[in-house]
Amino acid sequence: MRILILGSDGYLGWPTAMYLSARGHQVHAVDNYLRRKAHSEAGTDSLTPIATSLPARADAWYEVTGYRIGVTEGDLCEWDVVEPLFRDFQPEAIIHYGEMPSAPYSQISREHAVFTQQNNVINTLNVLFAMRDHTPEAHLVKLGTMGEYGTPNIDIEEGYIEIHHNGRSDRLPFPKLPGSLYHCSKVHDSTNIHFACRIWDLRATDLNQGVVYGIETDETKLDPRFVTRFDYDEVFGTALNRFCVQAVIGHPLTVYGKGGQTRGYLNIVDTLQCVELAALNPPTAGEYRVFNQFTQQFSVNELAEVVHRAGADVGVEVRIDHLENPRVEKEEHYYNATHTRLLNLGLKPHLLSDTLVESVFSAIELHKDRVNTSAIMPKTKWRPGPRVAERIPS
Amino acid sequence: MRILILGSDGYLGWPTAMYLSARGHQVHAVDNYLRRKAHSEAGTDSLTPIATSLPARADAWYEVTGYRIGVTEGDLCEWDVVEPLFRDFQPEAIIHYGEMPSAPYSQISREHAVFTQQNNVINTLNVLFAMRDHTPEAHLVKLGTMGEYGTPNIDIEEGYIEIHHNGRSDRLPFPKLPGSLYHCSKVHDSTNIHFACRIWDLRATDLNQGVVYGIETDETKLDPRFVTRFDYDEVFGTALNRFCVQAVIGHPLTVYGKGGQTRGYLNIVDTLQCVELAALNPPTAGEYRVFNQFTQQFSVNELAEVVHRAGADVGVEVRIDHLENPRVEKEEHYYNATHTRLLNLGLKPHLLSDTLVESVFSAIELHKDRVNTSAIMPKTKWRPGPRVAERIPS
Repeated sequence: MRILILGSDGYLGWPTAMYLSARGHQVHAVDNYLRRKAHSEAGTDSLTPIATSLPARADAWYEVTGYRIGVTEGDLCEWDVVEPLFRDFQPEAIIHYGEMPSAPYSQISREHAVFTQQNNVINTLNVLFAMRDHTPEAHLVKLGTMGEYGTPNIDIEEGYIEIHHNGRSDRLPFPKLPGSLYHCSKVHDSTNIHFACRIWDLRATDLNQGVVYGIETDETKLDPRFVTRFDYDEVFGTALNRFCVQAVIGHPLTVYGKGGQTRGYLNIVDTLQCVELAALNPPTAGEYRVFNQFTQQFSVNELAEVVHRAGADVGVEVRIDHLENPRVEKEEHYYNATHTRLLNLGLKPHLLSDTLVESVFSAIELHKDRVNTSAIMPKTKWRPGPRVAERIPS
Repeated sequence: MRILILGSDGYLGWPTAMYLSARGHQVHAVDNYLRRKAHSEAGTDSLTPIATSLPARADAWYEVTGYRIGVTEGDLCEWDVVEPLFRDFQPEAIIHYGEMPSAPYSQISREHAVFTQQNNVINTLNVLFAMRDHTPEAHLVKLGTMGEYGTPNIDIEEGYIEIHHNGRSDRLPFPKLPGSLYHCSKVHDSTNIHFACRIWDLRATDLNQGVVYGIETDETKLDPRFVTRFDYDEVFGTALNRFCVQAVIGHPLTVYGKGGQTRGYLNIVDTLQCVELAALNPPTAGEYRVFNQFTQQFSVNELAEVVHRAGADVGVEVRIDHLENPRVEKEEHYYNATHTRLLNLGLKPHLLSDTLVESVFSAIELHKDRVNTSAIMPKTKWRPGPRVAERIPS
């Protein structure tokens, strides 16, 4: 299958490119190094020393495996970049990771918020128009996020919900309560993609992914040049990955607030499985399909406990700190999200275990001298500074 | 009250500015002439000969009434325009009409779609950040649209719906099925504004407005220089207004498809009432409130019948044509939308009558030599051209 991977230089994009290439697919990888640039501006970096560029990665991959991965370095917000990709490569599936993926990043300032929404919404619109005009039968596999739903007081379904109201009923998009301006941008994308499927008969799968953890896949282990990036800073690092780095360097775990915040989680190797399962089983023309992509639910406190226990197993004492929550979110809430559709397609979950956490510790240990400890504590607040207090005279 | 009116040069913006100014409010008007520019590019124009600029309008208003309306000519996508407005004028209410408001416009091309979403989403983000930083107690009165809901098979509620599911319940945002990329942009705004209220304690009223008809208000009638714009072309004209112009010039009414498409409608004078009622009754801090702003529901066929009957009353024979529908929408569907919250605040509706339609005919009659008949038939298709037919080989 001809597969275009947008955002191929990222934590998940690069392992996905290798995974699908190793399975005989014709992979074309696209990135504009947005993440590398954001890190560079912030003075932070990946824990793992990743190869210098996407062409360097593809060259190393070819040298070791004999498989070619095509590369385009470019910005999907530019039509001159997007159109030729679809016109010339004629992808059958498009895996779209190519967005600014950080909630804290979007909350740093007005400029960051505007950039995040503009980048994500416009590049996805470009992809939809390119599909309409050049590959109308292709399948868009878009990475969404479980964070689009927020924490409603009812069970979360996979994208839609049957609503009974005043004696009538309809199956409608599940209501969204996104938790940051980044998460809002993903809701915008979902709205646009759903609309494009309705009017242009495009086919799309929105993978509402949980929080991904883990540092290695079968392919990243083959060669040091194949490692994927691993973020542990407050902006791009996610809960469990951050905690593992903190444990290894002896920093207290940074639990925000009470720690009852519960979310779906999955192992990076399951992300690869899920994306492949979605791509191999496309929806019908006009269908906008949503899968909740995670394997287990945990509260932040439960994750901290797992890391604490794994630390004890390897003789490291892990301290757990409860910091003032920089975000605005419920710290104790109901959470129960359906996630059966990918299991029905054949997903075999790799569940979280102390052993897995210990193996992440070992991989981090190799690079712990690279940790910039000043990037660990949360600085980005959802409510920055005191609001102007005085009431406006009327 | 200090009221900022964004998009003050438009069909509703200018009458709103006069209406609120006449009631003693301190009004500041902002526009970047987006609508005038779009018309100029398309070779179309308002039926009514509006004054040459917003300062010219404000000067005439002052000359006749003695009331001053402040004016800023500028683009709300530019922070350098938005920030000083909030910092210096310190609005207590912001009436936000300042968006690209046309579904067909957003469907003309990729460029038009991108422009519409970028313009609407980014300028509203700027407004939210300006409120956060300079007027956190102010009240945003945002013009949304009933078109955000689409045509679900259940009753449409005002912004939220109580959902009972698997033995639990929650009051959640009403699911949206927007019907164009413009309508999608309004859904994006709603998502962003709701989020800003949740995290920054801003207060906002989203007026999900139906289709507005009518050509005159108490203020527009005071002086020829006070007339508001009146669009009858396929891009900016809306159903009833377009039909009235078609009737007056002897053009068959352009009903799209079967004509069973049902929507909420209201008289332009009721828009002014609704906006004032919302502004005078702000929500509490942190509340994102949604009002469905219309007074009656009609199908397109019913509107065509009203115009046909009013024509007969004044001795004009009105022909009704059913054209191939350029849009993708249901032409026969259930539609029942709640609209009690503005009535509860005191709205006194001006319902549609044959007399009203006849008075619109008379006002149109004065300017019928200005009609560009080539702008009447729909050219913008939701599904442009044949899709690439061949299936991609796998």
